[in-house]
Parts: sequence; structure tokens; C-alpha cells
Amino acid sequence: MIWNYTQPVDIRFGAGRVSEIGDAARERGLYRGLLVAGGHSVRSGLAQRVVDSGRGAIDAVFSDFSPNPDVTEVDACAELIRERDLGFIVALGGGSALDLAKAASVIGVGSRETVGSIRDYHGTGKPLPLGHLPLIAVPTTAGTGSEVTCVSVLTDRAAGVKAPIVSNGFYPELAIVDPELTYTVPPYVTACTGMDVLSQAIEGYWSVGHQPICDALAVHAARLVFDFLPTAVERPDDREARERMCEASVIAGLAFTLPKTTSSHACSFPLTNRYGIAHGEACALTLDYFTRVNAADPEGRADALGRALGYRDADGLADAIADLRRALHLRESLADLDLDEPAIEALVRDSHHPNLLNNPVVITDDILLDLFHRLASSSSSYAGDPNISNQRLGEPGANEREERQ
Amino acid sequence: MIWNYTQPVDIRFGAGRVSEIGDAARERGLYRGLLVAGGHSVRSGLAQRVVDSGRGAIDAVFSDFSPNPDVTEVDACAELIRERDLGFIVALGGGSALDLAKAASVIGVGSRETVGSIRDYHGTGKPLPLGHLPLIAVPTTAGTGSEVTCVSVLTDRAAGVKAPIVSNGFYPELAIVDPELTYTVPPYVTACTGMDVLSQAIEGYWSVGHQPICDALAVHAARLVFDFLPTAVERPDDREARERMCEASVIAGLAFTLPKTTSSHACSFPLTNRYGIAHGEACALTLDYFTRVNAADPEGRADALGRALGYRDADGLADAIADLRRALHLRESLADLDLDEPAIEALVRDSHHPNLLNNPVVITDDILLDLFHRLASSSSSYAGDPNISNQRLGEPGANEREERQ
Repeated sequence: MIWNYTQPVDIRFGAGRVSEIGDAARERGLYRGLLVAGGHSVRSGLAQRVVDSGRGAIDAVFSDFSPNPDVTEVDACAELIRERDLGFIVALGGGSALDLAKAASVIGVGSRETVGSIRDYHGTGKPLPLGHLPLIAVPTTAGTGSEVTCVSVLTDRAAGVKAPIVSNGFYPELAIVDPELTYTVPPYVTACTGMDVLSQAIEGYWSVGHQPICDALAVHAARLVFDFLPTAVERPDDREARERMCEASVIAGLAFTLPKTTSSHACSFPLTNRYGIAHGEACALTLDYFTRVNAADPEGRADALGRALGYRDADGLADAIADLRRALHLRESLADLDLDEPAIEALVRDSHHPNLLNNPVVITDDILLDLFHRLASSSSSYAGDPNISNQRLGEPGANEREERQ
Repeated sequence: MIWNYTQPVDIRFGAGRVSEIGDAARERGLYRGLLVAGGHSVRSGLAQRVVDSGRGAIDAVFSDFSPNPDVTEVDACAELIRERDLGFIVALGGGSALDLAKAASVIGVGSRETVGSIRDYHGTGKPLPLGHLPLIAVPTTAGTGSEVTCVSVLTDRAAGVKAPIVSNGFYPELAIVDPELTYTVPPYVTACTGMDVLSQAIEGYWSVGHQPICDALAVHAARLVFDFLPTAVERPDDREARERMCEASVIAGLAFTLPKTTSSHACSFPLTNRYGIAHGEACALTLDYFTRVNAADPEGRADALGRALGYRDADGLADAIADLRRALHLRESLADLDLDEPAIEALVRDSHHPNLLNNPVVITDDILLDLFHRLASSSSSYAGDPNISNQRLGEPGANEREERQ
């Protein structure tokens, strides 16, 4: 087996460590910092606390961006960096703040004339310059793992495009993961971001780009989600559950950033874009289905993962995913949306994201049609259905035939 | 829980990838390379193959060093780097070549007047400069994990000191792990280096410096050793076994470089220095004993590791270690050495290496005396003895009392 590994992000993990930002900057010779912080962090006073604890390290704050950051907001942040001659970035927030900061750290480092706009690189395939301001990433949710990845997901609303950009220049210099920052995350967001962690770990494990270091980390992270997410949702101030979910999130980030995610992430994008379903909830909605589909992968990755997590096989893992999703009161179907056939076909069409190609089993349109028909028609659509993995091999299952009539 | 993580070494793993050295150097803008290669690699023709595959990237070869490299040999290598104005190092070999190259990569980068001799930093506590030539590490054994660690173990024969130096400047830029290079390693060396891998993984897991990323990697690596080391020893040309042992070695390196090793490594040093017992064999000799001792650690790390590896608890893991050691025909006692009481006391005294302080249970002289008495007096000294973990709590076991008379 041939594999590569790279993981250039230093990690500092622990309750209260957000206070180390100033020291970390000084140790690294970083001065004239820009804090990129979401509106929630500004309103809660956390952004000011970070500025204060930086003891002079932070000179400016940028918080004028949307939950799915737009390319124009990246360019505005880059312009501020140039105007104020800023030297590094602290990104504080969920995926939005971190993804915007990653892109601005590259676009802001050169002149507008030479580096251009982030638009030049968004969905165009043009590689970004590698020069970038050093970035300290401080996540406030246990979810995206963005603090250790080289991915930035941006939206170009004018062009109607939401797409990830991947660049080695996006790796943060340092991730400070402070579980205390997640104590105030409300239960529903905790549940959604936690299921995103699980999806990342599981999909990273069975991705065609899997490799052993990420395998080991995926198993560790997925087990933590099963063990601690219910408590983190039910008892938001349970310190241990919050801490272990933060551990799961950063380790899942390491587990998927190289292998990349697969089918559940691919199918989540149209569910979010068309119906506003939260990202993690959208991933979770199809994760057990694809676990059953992937059970028939000749390499046996889904079965191996199920066993490594303590279940009998892939089906046991799929059952556990469905049980967890139900326990968290997350969406189990799309029946409430009254989807008609054109709407289902549009979901199938829009699920053809490049991530789909990372799935260990070829996902045909028939499989996607079966998935979305099941979701559209029932409240508990496919738990324990042994026909799913048969269909994958081109033999339509009984349920599929019935539902298509 | 508070923890840090850093892992700056890029890894390329796979059969045949030693041929990528030249391309890797050019991609990174590295020119005028020095190949540091052990005598075995020179005699086998591997060193020449690397020079050839570098297609002009390598300008000089240094192979004049001993299996436990001496500080004078580091200085000689550094002098060659200065004389020839070399720009990077490829280290090809076991731990000796890699450890010598790490030290020379720092000492050779400045003038003799400013940086001095490696002697100035060896066993003195004086921190090394961080400036260093980029290093590409290419291990030829599945053992030390040195290709991903920041440790260099050097000997000063004139001063009678063998000691590790730790410096962030020692991290290689790139590790190329090519399992084909291990196909010719003889069975006994495979067994010894493989047991070193197991010791690193297990000790890294239960070390007081443990942290979750290294935990996950330790479990992965240790499981591989149990599953594949016997085959790698019995059938040296079993490609899968060789490959999985190389995977275990590099991942165990990642698993212990931050938490560090503990009691078995501490006790191995006098066994090697005084009696010439190979490093991995010396570690393996005490690993099951310390697994039983550590079973009583209140944090339960040894039990947790046993369960994560599929055994009932720490005792089950200890039994598996003893079984593996026996299956590999490695030394199970010191009875053949006819150790007298002063010799045993010297072993106890010399086991007080700093690594002993990383053990999760305080290792007293009574525990060390018990260990070495058992080893000195029997051929199969303590498998399954339930008294060992009792003694740890200050209650001498029956066997201990008997043996001390």
C-alpha cells in the first residue's frame, strides 16, 4: 500500500487555553494580529476577551461576514490586512470564521495586483499562491475540524457557487482547542456538529484515499462520538462530554483532511443548499444508508470499521448510527418536505459532487434514487434493511421496486 | 486534560519509494546532498542505488561511523558538510545513521566557531541551535521510528556517556519508508527491532505524558506487531508482513515521540551497555513485567490498552507479550549470565534513567530488585504471577520474599 502523510498544524488542547493566544504569538514572533471572529463571538464578549488576553498582540478585528462566507467578504478582509499591514490572523469561531480567515491569509499577503481576488481561485482550479500570513485557529464548536485542515469552503453568491478550495497554504500554524468555548453551544447545534464529526471520521476511514494513520485516528474519534455526544447534547455543561467531543472533532479533522469525505458529504450539499438542512444533520441523514451500501465493498472497510468500533460488522455500525441520530432527535427522513419526482431527481443530480468519487463503492444514480425515495417516503426509512447492500451490486431490492411505483 | 501535538515530518510510505529521493529533493529545492549511510548499506549496494536514483542530487557520502555513533563521528560529518558546502542530508540506515545525521544536520550548518562541537550539547542540557540542514530520513529496519522523531542517541566513548539529545531541529523534513529495504533484514534483527516497536507503542500509551492522538496511534501500531511480527520473522520475504511491520514502526514512532518511553526502555539501557543484549530484546525482556506492575495504576492505562488491543485486561496483554517473545525465541531470562548480588544491584542503579519517571506507577528500587532477581533466577520468570501488581502497592509478594533469601 502506498500512502503519504503530512500534518503541519501544532495543536494545543485544553480547558482555558484560549488565554495562551498572546503568548503563542509572541513565542512565534507574530505581531500586528487580526482577529477574525463571527458575530456570535463578538456579541458574547468572547472576541473582546481574546483581544484582551492577547495583551497587545491583536491590532484589528474583522467580523463583517456571513455564516457561509462570501468571496466578497474574503476580499474585504484581505483589503483590511493590506491597509493595516497586519502580520498574522487569529480565527475564532465555527467553520465560517476559520474558512474565511484561511482564504484571507493568502489573498491579503500580496498586493491586489499580483495576488488578485479570491474569486480568481474559487471553483476555477487555479492554484493559490503558497505565501500566507500565519494563522492561529481557535474553534468554538466541536464540529468542522477546520482548525487542522487545508480546506476552505466559500460561497460566491453572485455566481451561485459554493465550493471548497484546497491549498497547503491554508494549514493553520497553530490550533488552540479550548473545550470551554463550546460550553454555550446549544443542544441542537451540538448534535449537528457532533454528527458532522462522526461523518468525517467514518467517511475518512472508508474513503478510497484511506491510509493507516488516519484510520487509527478515525476509529478513536468515532468511538468518542458514540460515547460522549448524547451527554454533550443532554447536559451542555458536562465538562467531560464537551472535552471529549472537542477531542473527537480535532482528531476527526486529522482523520479526514487527507483521505477526504465521501458519499454522505456529497449528498449533504444539496440538502443544505436546497432545503436549509444543517450540514451535520444532512450528513447524518444518509450515513447509515451508505454504511450498509459500503458493507459490500470488496476491501471490507465498512465492516472493518464496524468491528474496530466494537460492533459486529457494518450493519451493526449502521444500526448504531441510526440509534444515535434518533436519540439526538435529529431528522430521520425528508417526508415532511413532500418531495415530488423532479425534486428527488434534482437531489440526485446535485449529489454528484467530487466527494462521491471517494466512496469505496461506486454510487450509481439508481442508488441515489433509492436513497432519496426512501427518505422522501417514510419516517424511519432503511434501518436494518438487508436489501440495501444487494442493490449496490445491481440487484434492486424489494423495497426499491415498491417505492418506485 | 491538557495536551499538545506537533508532527512536522512529511511521510511517504510504500514499496519502491526509495527511488523518489531525487524527485523529493528537487520538489523541495534541495541541492548538494550528503548521503549518510551505514556500512551495511554501502556493502549491499543500496547506498549506490540511492546515489544513482538521486540523479545528481547527492554529491557526497559519509559512512565512517559505528553502530552506536560517537560524538567525534558527528563532528567529522559536520566538518565534511562545511568543507563541501552541502545543502541537505539523506540518512539511510537504522537508528545509527539517522541519529548521526540528525546531529550533524545541526552542527554542520554554522561555522565551527559559532556552533561548536556536538560534545557541547551532549549530556550537558545546553539547547542546540534550531538552524539545521533539511533531512530526508530513509529507515532500513522496522524498528526505531527515528525517521519521525526529534531524538538522537549518541555516545561519547571518551567520556563513557551514552545519552539522547532532544531538539526540534532534529525532525526530518521527510521520511521515506520503503518496506522493500527491510526484506533482507535477518530474522533475529527483525524480532529485536519489532519488539522495540511494541515497547515504544505500549510505553508511549501508558506514559505519564500520554495524549489521545498518540494513544490512537499506539493501539494501531501495537496490534500490527502482534499480528505481523511472527510472520515477518519466520518468512522474511512475506511482503505483507514486512510492509505492516514498517507501518507499525513509523506509527509507533509518532506514538511515542511526544509521550516518551518509560520503564522498559529505562531498564534496557544497562542490559545493553553491560551485557550487550540487543536494544529491542532488552526492552521486551521486561515489558510484560511492567505491564503487570502498571495494571494497578489508578488511571488504568495498562488495562485500557489491554482491552483496546482485544485482551481481557493488562494481565491478558502481559501474557500476549510473553507468548510473542517466546514464539520469537527471544531471551526470557538472565539466568545464563550467573548474575551475583552486586551485579543485580548495579542493574537496579543503572536503570534510574529519566525515562523511569514517565512510568505511570512509581518504580521503586524494591520493584527493580524483584524484577532483576526474577530474571536472574529463572528461565520463565513471571508470566501470570498475580503477586507482581500487589508488590507495587508496597506489599511484597510471596515470590519476592523467597527470592531475596
